Amino acid sequence: MGALRLPSFASIFATTSSTATGSPSLFARHRHLLRHRPRLLPATANFSGQSTAERTEERDASNQKARGITPRSQDFNAWYLDVIANAELADYGPVRGTMVIRPYGYAIWEAIQDYMNVKFKETGHSNMYFPQFIPYSFIEKEASHIEGFSPELALVTIGGGKELEEKLVVRPTSETIVNHMFTQWIHSYRDLPLLVNQWANVTRWEMRTKPFVRTLEFLWQEGHTAHATFQEAEEEALQMIDVYTKFAYEHAAIPVIAGRKSKMETFAGASKTYTIEAMMGDRKALQAGTSHNLGQNFSRAFGTQFTDENGQRQHVWQTSWAISTRFVGGIIMTHGDDAGLMLPPKIAPIQVVIVPIWKKDEEKTGVLNAALSTEEILKGAGIRVKLDDSDQRTPGWKYNFWEMKGVPLRIEVGPRDVSSRTVVISRRDIPGKEGKVFGISMEASVLVAYVNDKLDEIQSSLLQRATSFRNCNIVDVNSYDELAAAISQAKWARGPWSASDKDELRVKEETGATLRCFPFEQPEGRKKTCLMTGNPAEEVAIFAKSY
Amino acid sequence: MGALRLPSFASIFATTSSTATGSPSLFARHRHLLRHRPRLLPATANFSGQSTAERTEERDASNQKARGITPRSQDFNAWYLDVIANAELADYGPVRGTMVIRPYGYAIWEAIQDYMNVKFKETGHSNMYFPQFIPYSFIEKEASHIEGFSPELALVTIGGGKELEEKLVVRPTSETIVNHMFTQWIHSYRDLPLLVNQWANVTRWEMRTKPFVRTLEFLWQEGHTAHATFQEAEEEALQMIDVYTKFAYEHAAIPVIAGRKSKMETFAGASKTYTIEAMMGDRKALQAGTSHNLGQNFSRAFGTQFTDENGQRQHVWQTSWAISTRFVGGIIMTHGDDAGLMLPPKIAPIQVVIVPIWKKDEEKTGVLNAALSTEEILKGAGIRVKLDDSDQRTPGWKYNFWEMKGVPLRIEVGPRDVSSRTVVISRRDIPGKEGKVFGISMEASVLVAYVNDKLDEIQSSLLQRATSFRNCNIVDVNSYDELAAAISQAKWARGPWSASDKDELRVKEETGATLRCFPFEQPEGRKKTCLMTGNPAEEVAIFAKSY
Repeated sequence: MGALRLPSFASIFATTSSTATGSPSLFARHRHLLRHRPRLLPATANFSGQSTAERTEERDASNQKARGITPRSQDFNAWYLDVIANAELADYGPVRGTMVIRPYGYAIWEAIQDYMNVKFKETGHSNMYFPQFIPYSFIEKEASHIEGFSPELALVTIGGGKELEEKLVVRPTSETIVNHMFTQWIHSYRDLPLLVNQWANVTRWEMRTKPFVRTLEFLWQEGHTAHATFQEAEEEALQMIDVYTKFAYEHAAIPVIAGRKSKMETFAGASKTYTIEAMMGDRKALQAGTSHNLGQNFSRAFGTQFTDENGQRQHVWQTSWAISTRFVGGIIMTHGDDAGLMLPPKIAPIQVVIVPIWKKDEEKTGVLNAALSTEEILKGAGIRVKLDDSDQRTPGWKYNFWEMKGVPLRIEVGPRDVSSRTVVISRRDIPGKEGKVFGISMEASVLVAYVNDKLDEIQSSLLQRATSFRNCNIVDVNSYDELAAAISQAKWARGPWSASDKDELRVKEETGATLRCFPFEQPEGRKKTCLMTGNPAEEVAIFAKSY
Repeated sequence: MGALRLPSFASIFATTSSTATGSPSLFARHRHLLRHRPRLLPATANFSGQSTAERTEERDASNQKARGITPRSQDFNAWYLDVIANAELADYGPVRGTMVIRPYGYAIWEAIQDYMNVKFKETGHSNMYFPQFIPYSFIEKEASHIEGFSPELALVTIGGGKELEEKLVVRPTSETIVNHMFTQWIHSYRDLPLLVNQWANVTRWEMRTKPFVRTLEFLWQEGHTAHATFQEAEEEALQMIDVYTKFAYEHAAIPVIAGRKSKMETFAGASKTYTIEAMMGDRKALQAGTSHNLGQNFSRAFGTQFTDENGQRQHVWQTSWAISTRFVGGIIMTHGDDAGLMLPPKIAPIQVVIVPIWKKDEEKTGVLNAALSTEEILKGAGIRVKLDDSDQRTPGWKYNFWEMKGVPLRIEVGPRDVSSRTVVISRRDIPGKEGKVFGISMEASVLVAYVNDKLDEIQSSLLQRATSFRNCNIVDVNSYDELAAAISQAKWARGPWSASDKDELRVKEETGATLRCFPFEQPEGRKKTCLMTGNPAEEVAIFAKSY
């Protein structure tokens, strides 16, 4: 526990010097809590001994550093862990590699669930639940499946105080148990297609873990379907990768590249694996969702057959597809900046935070009333809004805090705004004065229209920014040397590829990059020759270092 | 697997005789599938070789038996398992005692989740997720907790191919890991109350299992809260049992009795346990939800402290509360009848089924169009509706099938209805002609109002019926003999109780009944004397046999 996160001495020193501008004893206390226990702060955390009057925005500004987010540009990994800790997205569980998903992080996962549940049902799937304990013998039935998963299994060997006769696998994925059940439910072509999904936890004994991205236990959905023909299974697999792709673009503002995995990178037990690959802020690739055409691999292993329209027994054709809490990691690493998290409005648990500002006691009531009425107006319009009216913190502290938590819009309401019946609105994605607009009317229809408009703009702007970043960092290559050069510059390399598994392995070993996918969108035009062999190549592939 | 469900020879014979009225060869085939594989039928199951023209409603009526539901009055347990199999609510998993929750059963669970999620958030709780693997040493920290749970633990001893240094418990409940994390998050009184909930799977190595009611793995929500005072924790525990009670009455139409558990029946590690106790159709009690005031038991074991307003360190006061997929079993066993499941409209996955009826081909289009438009109208009004337009089945078969699945309302649309622009509506809770009304206008506003009205009536009627049944089966007793007599008649016994744990154990050993609760609603009036000892008693308790 905690092994992944070492305190950064550099920032402890940096913080110490910043106390020069503030009240030393107060800041010392504050810093102590923040620096040494950055991930121990609940969302409502308040520190005792501070009064509003004693604080200024200038002092607060120094807390930005005190809050201990390593600049992204300085150390991407440290930044990522700091954001997760400080924005209270997750914490480490007591068992190595496990993760506690805290309410703010879980709310992002719930936004993903809400979207997917609608799409899954629209496309004819039903939710259900399969047990997580799988007899060990099941895992062995599909040869490449056991080869892929056996090093990662957690095994239950004792139940109710007794040694079990057969070890039980804690599901790493459910294809085997799903097929065991499908074999009992499917008889005739009329039982097909069978389209189900489950939301569940899965366990993979990973050696190198990282919150959200790779944890010993994670949450996901796994869809499982059975069809009468290869073609139908293929269409299903493609349909579901398309659902994921649309979510990534339209909600998560992540311009993923959808494509097909190479044979080497195909899921253990699948005939084909489709993937969406996202470029993180450090330009590493993140596999953010996969959809497998399983062919008849599992149905042959488990005898999952149906009687077709001609009375013939046939093995079903299957798919499975999944996205997981890893996607939350992808959102953090796509949009965050030095100030912390930056959330696309469509999936932000809080879209707008309202910060009331007053200096004198006689201003307080008027300001708070205006802030409350602003909150009511936005809530009534279905906007996810939070009024931060605590008087434990200065406005400046709150600005930094909610920026760090990635809230897309901030509304400030001060005494002058009250008298002019206006508010000030700041965008998270445009720092400083440029993103700040004064004098937006508090009148409900004007305010709601303005806020919705800005949320839409931010949503588009995040996607646009991520798309430019992605495009700037993909290099078209035509030789192995060019590929290696691109990878060594931490870029993605895209080039014609028809070489062997052995060549693919060589790229991995020599450059650290893997073949992420053959993208669905292929460049048109001239005939291609494989960058590695010079042989004709039908497709370009993308190589990158990855999580 | 399957050990819990033995074929009933009685009903196989009963079925054989019923084929006299039908086409023997068709029925033999049909029966074969149904009798020997009752739980293998997917919701869309169709049997080949049958044409609509060959079948009559009379023949279909005999299928009611053929479908193999043991009458409830004959064998409650066999009926329960038959309903679960035939209504496709659940199936047995490959590991003893595990359960696959099928889409129709899972949809009931989703209805429970949807309701609870709203209520939990309204009362200030956030969802989050704790890992399921708990270091064995955690479980040992709270003395009565380990005593209660150690016989039921599933232990992971091998991970990633290696024997683990410390065994991991697959969570049977999460108080220990929750406290481990709370200890890191809670510092000051300002961090309190901390109010969280998780939806998760839990594992308890039960010896005698029964689908939904008691399974090796089940799904639940577990709320966990921490407070600054005993009083606040007590209010929280009571608030949450009240949320469960309201759901039971208002949505599940189950007239639970809410109350406090005796010391002997209190949760392992709690100071007080509140419960809702439901009377099943066989008059056994089902503990359908619990809410625990944990006092400082876990906070002392885990050192979960906060600094109060006076700067003093104090242990937090805690609660936990849960309902599980067991509740689905409670719904089945409260409302079902000989024909199968009967679902309260508010939680029914399908509230209205539309069955189109035609004999001649020229009628088909008109009937189907009217059925489709009826479906559209109801869907548009937010009613959960299914149009069963398959031509693999006769209308009579469909009537029986959807009755067995517990759908509250059936709408029939035939050629005569098309010409009169009306439909026929039948209630699931009132069998035969009495529950059937002809000539309801297809006009949208009339139809929607009528359907909503009937759904409300059914909802109330189910609650009323269950309440009468419950009231008729609770006997007020004033002596141990009276108690024993009531229990031997399979009733609940309610009487004044202030006797010892030893006396409570004697009741259990001699009558098989346990003290279900001291109900919140106590009879007013005269002074009470304990039914067992004759000593003064402050409260009446309820004793019953239970699941």
